[in-house]
Amino acid sequence: MLTHFSETELTYDGSQLASHFAYRGFGLLGDSVVAFLGPCEVKLEALVDLEDVRRNAPIYSQRMLHFLWESFALDLRGAAAFQRLMVAVVAEELRARGAAGLIRRGDDLYVGERKLSVSIAAASPVSTLIHLGLNVTGEGAPVPALGLADLGVDAAAFAKICLERFREEYEGVLKAGYKVRPVD
Amino acid sequence: MLTHFSETELTYDGSQLASHFAYRGFGLLGDSVVAFLGPCEVKLEALVDLEDVRRNAPIYSQRMLHFLWESFALDLRGAAAFQRLMVAVVAEELRARGAAGLIRRGDDLYVGERKLSVSIAAASPVSTLIHLGLNVTGEGAPVPALGLADLGVDAAAFAKICLERFREEYEGVLKAGYKVRPVD
Amino acid sequence: MLTHFSETELTYDGSQLASHFAYRGFGLLGDSVVAFLGPCEVKLEALVDLEDVRRNAPIYSQRMLHFLWESFALDLRGAAAFQRLMVAVVAEELRARGAAGLIRRGDDLYVGERKLSVSIAAASPVSTLIHLGLNVTGEGAPVPALGLADLGVDAAAFAKICLERFREEYEGVLKAGYKVRPVD
Amino acid sequence: MLTHFSETELTYDGSQLASHFAYRGFGLLGDSVVAFLGPCEVKLEALVDLEDVRRNAPIYSQRMLHFLWESFALDLRGAAAFQRLMVAVVAEELRARGAAGLIRRGDDLYVGERKLSVSIAAASPVSTLIHLGLNVTGEGAPVPALGLADLGVDAAAFAKICLERFREEYEGVLKAGYKVRPVD
Amino acid sequence: MLTHFSETELTYDGSQLASHFAYRGFGLLGDSVVAFLGPCEVKLEALVDLEDVRRNAPIYSQRMLHFLWESFALDLRGAAAFQRLMVAVVAEELRARGAAGLIRRGDDLYVGERKLSVSIAAASPVSTLIHLGLNVTGEGAPVPALGLADLGVDAAAFAKICLERFREEYEGVLKAGYKVRPVD
Amino acid sequence: MLTHFSETELTYDGSQLASHFAYRGFGLLGDSVVAFLGPCEVKLEALVDLEDVRRNAPIYSQRMLHFLWESFALDLRGAAAFQRLMVAVVAEELRARGAAGLIRRGDDLYVGERKLSVSIAAASPVSTLIHLGLNVTGEGAPVPALGLADLGVDAAAFAKICLERFREEYEGVLKAGYKVRPVD
Repeated sequence: MLTHFSETELTYDGSQLASHFAYRGFGLLGDSVVAFLGPCEVKLEALVDLEDVRRNAPIYSQRMLHFLWESFALDLRGAAAFQRLMVAVVAEELRARGAAGLIRRGDDLYVGERKLSVSIAAASPVSTLIHLGLNVTGEGAPVPALGLADLGVDAAAFAKICLERFREEYEGVLKAGYKVRPVD
Repeated sequence: MLTHFSETELTYDGSQLASHFAYRGFGLLGDSVVAFLGPCEVKLEALVDLEDVRRNAPIYSQRMLHFLWESFALDLRGAAAFQRLMVAVVAEELRARGAAGLIRRGDDLYVGERKLSVSIAAASPVSTLIHLGLNVTGEGAPVPALGLADLGVDAAAFAKICLERFREEYEGVLKAGYKVRPVD
Repeated sequence: MLTHFSETELTYDGSQLASHFAYRGFGLLGDSVVAFLGPCEVKLEALVDLEDVRRNAPIYSQRMLHFLWESFALDLRGAAAFQRLMVAVVAEELRARGAAGLIRRGDDLYVGERKLSVSIAAASPVSTLIHLGLNVTGEGAPVPALGLADLGVDAAAFAKICLERFREEYEGVLKAGYKVRPVD
Repeated sequence: MLTHFSETELTYDGSQLASHFAYRGFGLLGDSVVAFLGPCEVKLEALVDLEDVRRNAPIYSQRMLHFLWESFALDLRGAAAFQRLMVAVVAEELRARGAAGLIRRGDDLYVGERKLSVSIAAASPVSTLIHLGLNVTGEGAPVPALGLADLGVDAAAFAKICLERFREEYEGVLKAGYKVRPVD
Repeated sequence: MLTHFSETELTYDGSQLASHFAYRGFGLLGDSVVAFLGPCEVKLEALVDLEDVRRNAPIYSQRMLHFLWESFALDLRGAAAFQRLMVAVVAEELRARGAAGLIRRGDDLYVGERKLSVSIAAASPVSTLIHLGLNVTGEGAPVPALGLADLGVDAAAFAKICLERFREEYEGVLKAGYKVRPVD
Repeated sequence: MLTHFSETELTYDGSQLASHFAYRGFGLLGDSVVAFLGPCEVKLEALVDLEDVRRNAPIYSQRMLHFLWESFALDLRGAAAFQRLMVAVVAEELRARGAAGLIRRGDDLYVGERKLSVSIAAASPVSTLIHLGLNVTGEGAPVPALGLADLGVDAAAFAKICLERFREEYEGVLKAGYKVRPVD
């Protein structure tokens, strides 16, 4: 799995959740995860989570650490399992940096009732994709929220840690499939 | 996902890692996770993890809490991702019960350098399977180990908590695939 | 498989043959079949059956009982087999209500040379879909046709019977995959 | 789909439910359905339907018309759907020959409470398989049964009719996948 | 695999690389390969090879022999392997007609540094597709090129030879899957 | 794709055509191709090509250059396409070394009527496999044969060339799937 941290900031508006984002933007060919900082503003018509559409809940955050993951090897269900694993990894790393009271509920991360993350897994015709966004600041969010800054965590440094962890987990998942004898 | 806690104890010897274990033994038809208590003794010839075979490392534990999970919906890579999620869930629940110093490394759980768990994901021709074993006691293990008892956790009660958590996570993963618009 | 009979009438124009129709419209999450009454009017550009496109044969019926089925478990070939089974089920239930001379030809149902049904199976990027429409009346159709009313069958009551039968057949198909030992 | 009626009689003992039966025995390469006459005697250890195993219900019939179907294109769920369609086809053809009171329950065919058929769908590592057996006589069966002879139907002639119908249905299912535009 | 040589010339502009091209245009239902002569002009926005997009390299040739292949049985990786095999087949047939100095580099064919071909494999939601274009003349191409005419090969006659060879190779690939025992 | 040339000679008896051969024997984890020299002696009961079984044609060669390829990414049809590409690659490299009169027929390589190679593609439950054997000498073969030595080609040196070519082709096939926009 190729990883890249983009020094250039980008607004995540949902259009990035499409096949080959990492190749088009950064030349990464194959399974990849890219991180960048920037606002998050997904309008109703760009939402892919139909639960959000039904609740009429567009997504907004002033500033987030975004991860865009793409796999040509996992199907949508595998991607949804990996998505939750990514959220668990973020919690592990935040805990290791002193964050207290972190709770993972499915693919969301909370400190108490304040939301830290947004996330979605989706399928393109040729790959599966995950967007995971972590608030840098919770200000201005449509729900009670907090951010990495509130936890005293530097977003850019944390991005690089997480990219490496996601790569290890992903390669571990693939490796698991390479070393196990078929059973009856 | 159907769940079942078997009051009858069983020795896990690797033969349980086969399709339809839950149906043959307990009548559970379809995706399922079953828990039981008992020794763990997987001889070399029953090992499915070829890494263990290459290291000539049979598996032994005096007493474990065993989980056997089967899915007819996830492929091997999805199962390997879910396996790590299961281990993360166990860590979350142990932490909520006061355990300190828990570290997940891939699909293994440690307290410091003492190993708490064994785990494998495999594919049968019709399904995918996960075995996750948590030591009840670390005594007699071939590597430095500890068990749920050392953490002050009652294995049977903990089994039921975990079964429910695994069910929720699994159904959440399936649901994720039911509500997301395809992307380009 | 979730089932729903919509009391609200709808015109089937082909746009309903898309992923998540049942979730968007009725909140049904996962495998589902929905029934509703209303006209059928599929213009040339909305046809998905390219055989119809090549014959320049738009679809029209004054009033139909519509079934929209979606599966996240069957592929397109499985859906096409299930589609024919659904048509066979409709024939069985009509016969049980006294209809004579029913003939199934592939995925079409006839009484003599008069056509009772239209049907298509298709694949979205995330699921497979079936539309099955049964004429309530054969008047105004572009080909010799008859309807449920001509057979003395109440469409709404029949809808509920069929929804239940489709659910049973679908769950039976899934169950068949859960209880069979792999062979060589 | 290649079809073949074997003039040689064979005892069906479950070993025929394996990949390439038609190629090994009759040189049919690819998707195929083969018919033959002979006893049916599947001992407990050869049963692939674990529901039968759990009920301790070996299968026996003095004489049956057997169909063995193999597809390299349908998965197990598609095969299970096709299996029910095959049973519906048999019912259609028996009805066309004057049989009254036929009832299909899932993949079984009855006249009243007397059973006419046995059937199973299974997956080999490279294909899917269906065995469908129709009693020629119901005498000696372990459950109330009747046979084609009781319905005044000649088994060999009926075999050839059914082979042709199964071929048409199968090719229709494949064709359905070749002519339909993908939807959203 | 159905084959067809279109006597009508067509400009290949990339829009032909879509599911059911052979059925829409020529009534070929199922796996197929179609050949036609005509210019090749794929503008930037119609390019599906994102490597070409990144290099800003639209495709142009005054006159080409085009092959459009579609399979409902191979996935994208299988199609990419078959694409290279098709290019190797073209080289074999040109060599048999006296061409010297032919070099295949991946899915491209060269004589020295002059390019003879363009090619792409892609996936639609229901099938996989290959376009293979062989220059009839190398004049006017954006890179050093040569054509079949330069090799003294008649394009229309060569088309028919290649169609037959592609059909044989494709059916051989399918056959390979029908006759091989599963291994452990 | 990992590659390895084994300095140790081995007899190919068919048992090597099984999942994880490269991992068990050489520690290669994942997609791989391994080469070794040694006799080839596949008895009837070890044959996986049922066409050979039907012809009662065990395989024998005094000494061969063997390639064993395993992929966790291609399905059986993709492997069968890649197998023919491998044979075409061998022909290309032999031609580049001065061999004349080489003819590829499907997955076999001939010089005139003398056979140079044996080959099979197969599926394990977790991967696909290819064995390609090139005679070092044609002496003692059950059919008219010739070997690399007759062509003046050193088998060990040639092995390393081919391993590298197979790796390039395989990675090119995967890359093709990573850079192509989905089409309609």
